[in-house]
Amino acid sequence: MYKHGGDIYSNVDCLDFSANINFLGMPAAVRNAVINSIDKCVHYPDVRMTELKSAISEREQLDLDYIICGNGAAELIYAVTAAVKPKKALIFAPSFHEYEQSLANANAELMVFELKEENSFLFGEKEETKFLNMIDSNTDIVFICNPNNPTGILTDRTIIERILARCERNNSLLVVDECFLDFVDNKELFSMRDFVSKSKNIFVLKAFTKIFAMPGLRLGYGLCSDSYLIKKIKNILQPWNVSVPAQAAGVVASGLKHFEKETLDALLTEKRYLLNAFDLKGIRVYGSAANFLFFKEDVDFGKKMRSENILVRDCSNYRGLQSGFYRIAVRSHSENKEFINCLNKIC
Amino acid sequence: MYKHGGDIYSNVDCLDFSANINFLGMPAAVRNAVINSIDKCVHYPDVRMTELKSAISEREQLDLDYIICGNGAAELIYAVTAAVKPKKALIFAPSFHEYEQSLANANAELMVFELKEENSFLFGEKEETKFLNMIDSNTDIVFICNPNNPTGILTDRTIIERILARCERNNSLLVVDECFLDFVDNKELFSMRDFVSKSKNIFVLKAFTKIFAMPGLRLGYGLCSDSYLIKKIKNILQPWNVSVPAQAAGVVASGLKHFEKETLDALLTEKRYLLNAFDLKGIRVYGSAANFLFFKEDVDFGKKMRSENILVRDCSNYRGLQSGFYRIAVRSHSENKEFINCLNKIC
Repeated sequence: MYKHGGDIYSNVDCLDFSANINFLGMPAAVRNAVINSIDKCVHYPDVRMTELKSAISEREQLDLDYIICGNGAAELIYAVTAAVKPKKALIFAPSFHEYEQSLANANAELMVFELKEENSFLFGEKEETKFLNMIDSNTDIVFICNPNNPTGILTDRTIIERILARCERNNSLLVVDECFLDFVDNKELFSMRDFVSKSKNIFVLKAFTKIFAMPGLRLGYGLCSDSYLIKKIKNILQPWNVSVPAQAAGVVASGLKHFEKETLDALLTEKRYLLNAFDLKGIRVYGSAANFLFFKEDVDFGKKMRSENILVRDCSNYRGLQSGFYRIAVRSHSENKEFINCLNKIC
Repeated sequence: MYKHGGDIYSNVDCLDFSANINFLGMPAAVRNAVINSIDKCVHYPDVRMTELKSAISEREQLDLDYIICGNGAAELIYAVTAAVKPKKALIFAPSFHEYEQSLANANAELMVFELKEENSFLFGEKEETKFLNMIDSNTDIVFICNPNNPTGILTDRTIIERILARCERNNSLLVVDECFLDFVDNKELFSMRDFVSKSKNIFVLKAFTKIFAMPGLRLGYGLCSDSYLIKKIKNILQPWNVSVPAQAAGVVASGLKHFEKETLDALLTEKRYLLNAFDLKGIRVYGSAANFLFFKEDVDFGKKMRSENILVRDCSNYRGLQSGFYRIAVRSHSENKEFINCLNKIC
C-alpha cells in the first residue's frame, strides 16, 4: 500500500490536496536560482555548504556550526536517530511516520504516547504530565512535531520547554520537528530555536520543502549546539548529500521574508474559507494550525473524492488512527472552491 | 583538511583536474530534462521511481525489482553497509574512502588488503590468493572498486568471479563499485552485472554522476537480486531520497548510448595525448583504465600546479598512500594542453 501523501504519479488527473505544499508555489527567485544552478551541476556540490549555511545562519540568527543540512528534513530524521543509536525512544501518535521508521532501523524500544480522539488529539498540560513521566534515564531520544502532522495541532512552547528540561535531566535528546511552523502566525512564540544555543539536548528540525514549495528539490536543516552529535550525524551522511540545485535554492529562499509574509496572509484567508465550508457541513476539523486541515469523515470519503479527481490524504495508516481520518492541504481559492463543491456534493 | 576532489569552491580561479567528470559535459538532452523538471519540483519525488527504474532496467537489461536508486552512489554505499550491519569487513587500500567511513559508522572490524606500490598497485592472481584467504565465515561484506579509484587499475572479471564464489560460500556480500566502468572500452567484459540475477551475494554499484557529468544532481543506483537486502536498504533510506531533477535526468540519460560511445572515443584520444606527455617527462602512470590518471610525482607537485591555477587530486590522504601520489582527470584537449604546459614548466 502507498504510505504517503502526494502520489500524483498514480493519480495524474487529480487535484492534489494530499501533500501540504505552499499553494503560492515556488517563488520566482528560487526558480531562477535553480535554473542558474544547472550548469554548475557538472561539479560536485560544495560539501562544506558554505554559502547555504551562511544564508541559514542569517535566517535563523544562529551560529554556522549549529547548522546541518539534509536532502530534505526526512534524511536528517534518519541520520539523527542513526547517530544517537537509541535503545529507547518516545514518540507521539499520531505523528509523522518517519520518526518511527528511523527508530525501527535502530532497533530502538519504542514508547508511544497516544493522542486521544476523545481529547481532540490535543497535547495539553494533562497530557504533558503523563508524557513527562514516560521520559526516564533510559530514554535516549524524544520526537515532537509542532505543529503536529497530521493533526495540525500546535503545542504551547511552555510545555515543550518543560519536556526539554526533563530531557536535560535524563540526558535525552529532544527532536522538535518544526517543518510546518513556518505556516503559523507569530511562529517565534512557538519555535524552540532560541533554546538551541542554550541546550545541547535539543535538535530543531526545519524544512524549505513546504514553505517554499520545493519538495522535489529536497532541502531541510537541523539546528543543534551539540558539536559531538553534529559530527556524528555528518559521518553518517555522505559528504555530498545536498545537491547543487537544492543548495542554490536554499541560499535564495533563506532571504525571502516577504514571500513568507505573503504566504501567511493568503493562507489565513483560504483557511477561513475552507473552515467555514466544513463548519456549514457540520464536519469537525481537529486541527488547522499549519497549511492543512485534519478531520473525520465517512470511511469512503477518500474514495468518493478520488472519483471526483480530488486526492486527499487518507490518514488510516497513521499509528493511532483508524479509517475515516483525513488530511487536506489548503490550496488556492479556485482549487479550494472546487474542493468545497465536491464536499457539498459528496457529504 | 579537505578530504575530497572537486573543491572548486575554495579554488574558484582553478581549472579542476581533481574531480573525474566526463569532459564532454552534461548531455544537452539531460540538461533539457532537468530544466523541464523544475516546475515539477513543487511536488514530492515519485517514491516508487517507476519511470527512472524502468529506464535503468532497460539500460541494464535487469529486472525492475533488482534496482535501487540513491542520492548519488555514495548514499547507497552508506545504506548497504547500514543494512548489512557488518561485524567484519574487507576492503582494498588505496580505494574510495567512503567504504571505510560507512564501515566505521557500523563499528565493523576492518580488514584491509594493501595494494602495494612495488606491485604497481595491481590486483592480480598473486594478490587474489591472499585476498581470498582474508574472506571467512565471519566476513559480512567485501568492497571492490573496478576500475579502482584512485589507482585507475582494472581488475579481471575472472578474479572477481572467484571472489564472489568465495563470498557465496561464506555468506558474505560482495559490493562491486563500477562507478567508473562506463569509461572503459568493452565494459561488458569487466562488469559483474550479469551475475546479479544469478547470485544474491553481489551488489553492483553504478553512477550517473561521472559518465553523464551530473555530480551536482546526485544519482546513483545499485543492482542486487537479494530482495530482503533491498527491502532493508529501502527502510534505511528516506522514501524521497532521489530528487525530481535527478529522476528526470536519469530517465533521459539511461538511453544515451550514442553519448557514451562518443565519450569513449574522445576519452581515448585525450588519454593518449596526456599519457604521451607523462611518458616524455618520464613520469610513471600506474593506472589509466577510466577517465583519470594516477601517478607519482614530487611532494610539492600539487602545490606547484595550484600556483599555476590547476587543481589536481593530492592522494596523500588515501589509506595506503603517502605524499607524492596524485590523480588527474582527463579533460578536453585545450585543457589537457594547458595541463601539459604546466607539467613541462614544473617538472
